[in-house]
Parts: sequence; structure tokens; C-alpha cells
Amino acid sequence: MDFFAAVEARRSVRKYTEKLVPADTIHKAIDAALNAPNSSNMQTWKIFWVQDKQKKAALVEACFSQGAAKTAQELVVFSVDRKEWRNSQKAILAAMGPNMPKEAHSYYTKLMPFLYARSYLAPIKWLLFNTVGLFRPMARSPWDMRGVNEVCIKSCALACENFMLAISAQGFDTCPMEGFDEHRVKKMLGLRCHERVVMVISVGERDPKGVWGERFRRPKDSVFKII
Amino acid sequence: MDFFAAVEARRSVRKYTEKLVPADTIHKAIDAALNAPNSSNMQTWKIFWVQDKQKKAALVEACFSQGAAKTAQELVVFSVDRKEWRNSQKAILAAMGPNMPKEAHSYYTKLMPFLYARSYLAPIKWLLFNTVGLFRPMARSPWDMRGVNEVCIKSCALACENFMLAISAQGFDTCPMEGFDEHRVKKMLGLRCHERVVMVISVGERDPKGVWGERFRRPKDSVFKII
Repeated sequence: MDFFAAVEARRSVRKYTEKLVPADTIHKAIDAALNAPNSSNMQTWKIFWVQDKQKKAALVEACFSQGAAKTAQELVVFSVDRKEWRNSQKAILAAMGPNMPKEAHSYYTKLMPFLYARSYLAPIKWLLFNTVGLFRPMARSPWDMRGVNEVCIKSCALACENFMLAISAQGFDTCPMEGFDEHRVKKMLGLRCHERVVMVISVGERDPKGVWGERFRRPKDSVFKII
Repeated sequence: MDFFAAVEARRSVRKYTEKLVPADTIHKAIDAALNAPNSSNMQTWKIFWVQDKQKKAALVEACFSQGAAKTAQELVVFSVDRKEWRNSQKAILAAMGPNMPKEAHSYYTKLMPFLYARSYLAPIKWLLFNTVGLFRPMARSPWDMRGVNEVCIKSCALACENFMLAISAQGFDTCPMEGFDEHRVKKMLGLRCHERVVMVISVGERDPKGVWGERFRRPKDSVFKII
């Protein structure tokens, strides 16, 4: 399907029909998700396709049993684990081998650990960034682990959008849900304390009543400026 | 262009050719960006297309003069202003008029102000969410303004991805940059203290040397699980 048609067709669907979604459709969308750009290629995303009946029921409940979850054929959870930076670092160093440019090597072996770990240095990082920043352009974040999570969540959201558009391009529908009990979803998935659930995305075929009217956006010139 | 071809073609480009990007290409991508789903339709995104020569030079410098910015034909800044929820609330209430369902009305007039404003209630919100959450599924965030920013940034990232894919679908290239001096970018754009810069996206036609090798991703089964 044409890219712009997929964007146009995508709407948040609150009620699905009983039509099944082929496994291939989901897999193709996951592949598209994993092709999204992501910060420093740290690939801190973790995606769970919940098929187990009991777990799915628990997930629906954790999404407050909203129609978008309850009537969905499939539920996919996008989460981030900031500590995955270490596995990606290893994989990148192994893949690039001894011919890795020096700057890239020190980026991944020095800067990444400094930013993504060493949470006890948070106040020092803040002070360093903002002191150097007085004199020359300087990154201001992430200086603490909440900031690292923000970076990871941002990249994961890029993947979420690829996923949703890919489902749309294949003639099915989605609803991105942020209304859920993160604590219960994490428990159900066995995620650790520092991990974060970014979005639960439901998939299915839209019931005509599942779309709440025309898409509503404020006028373009209220949110977009040429300067 | 086919959706999957656009996803496949999109790579982060660090060096662009001198080919100009038609204004229509950017506008079409902005329109696609604004069709992204976003949390509670609060549309807290603000997008700036920086054309002014002096401002563009300042922006390139704030991006540490990296090749992806320096050689770019166009630079577009995606930011969020969480206080924009109020304008969206007004616009939604006006558009829906007196026939708005009661639940939707109270969602926008009671829940939204409670979540997006009233920062002084942060500890109370945290306590409320986590106490009620002991007994039944309950949202755990956003309980403070950093949490609200996180929600806004997540929605804005969805828009960023639409933008990048839309540029790719039109045969041009992008690079999403998170390496910039947020303080300087905000100052240059005249953004207020509580606003956040999400991403600076450069646009142009890729120079063959502008793409750093093959796309590298860890094996699918290390980040994706069926449960």
C-alpha cells in the first residue's frame, strides 16, 4: 500500500470485528518496527506479542478492560530496558571488529557507559553538562536514569509508529494505548524494576463503530511555524 | 511509494548532496506528522522549519556542527509544550459542542487538567495512583510534570517517525538528531522553560558516503518474544 494511504487510513480503533489477523501481518509489522531509527543504535526496545489466553486476559484487565483491548484480536506490548545498551554495545563492537573507526570505538566504549549507566554520577553529569554549556554548545541530557529512559522511550515510540503504519498498510487497524496499569503489565511480563512499558498496541479489523468520528486536529499554523 | 519500501529506504544520513528539497516535500511530510496518533489528542507538539540563514547557522552549531546538520538542505525541529493541552482541550470542546458524550466531557474537563496541570499535587497523585493500584488496575503515571513531558515526547516521536518516513517516501533522506544543546536550541526558538526539544531532523538527498554501512540490528529473537 502507498505510504500516504497508510498514514491516512490509520485511525485509533476502539472496537474490532472478529476477523483474525494473520501471524504474517504481525511479523511483518514487527520487522518494520525494528527498522526504525533509534538513539545511538542502542536498541533498548523489547516487544512482546501476548498470545497466551490467561496472560492476554490479564493484559486486557491491566488496560482497564477498555474496548480497544477487550475486542482486539492481538495485543503487542512495546517496552524499554535501558540496560540493554550493554548487549547492543557488545553486538556493535563484535560486528564492526578491529576496523572500527577510533571515534566510533570510544563513542561506544566511553560515552555510552557514561551516559547509560553510572547513575550515581547524576549530579556530576548535570553540573558538567551545564557548566561546559555556559561556554560552548553541549548536550544537556541524559544526566540521570529518568533521562536515559526518556531517550529509550522516544526511540521505542518511533518503532511503535512503524508498527502501526505497517499494520495499516496491510489493511488492518490498531490502537495505541497509554492508559494501563504499568505495574501490573510489568509484573505480567516479568519485567524488572527499571524497565518501562511504552505502549500497548491492539490489532484487529475495525468495526465501523470503533472509530470516533472524523480525525480532529487543530489548524496547522497553530502548531507549525516557518522561522 | 509503497509503505515498506519507504521503511526500507529510510536510513540516518550524515552527509547530504547539494540537491534542493522542494517546499512541497516538507509540507507533505509535516501533514503526515500531524496525522500521527497522540495521547488523548492533546496535540502538544510544536514544529519549527528553520529557514532563516542566521537561525539555521545557530541551529547547526547547537547540533555540534555535525555533518548531518551542517550539510543538510533543511532543518526541522520537533518540540513539545505540555501547556498546549489547554488549547487542544478548548478546541476539542468547541468542535464537539453540546452533543459531546458525558464521559468524554468529564475526561477533557476533569481528568486532563488533573493530569497535565496542578504540578503541586505531584506527591498526592503518586500516592493516590499507587494506593488505589494496590486494589485494582490503575494508571501509575503521569504523576509529575516530568511524567507529562514523557507522554508528550512519546506522542511527538510518533509524529517524527511519520515525518521521516514521509520524506523517505518522496525520495529524500533524513537524520534524526538527539545530540544537540537543548538550552541553545530553545533559546534560539524562543521556547519557554517548561518546553522540551524532542528531535532535530535534517532533510536532504543522501550523499553515498552519508550512510554508515549496512543497517545493523541485533537478532529479532533477542528483542521480540511471543508469550
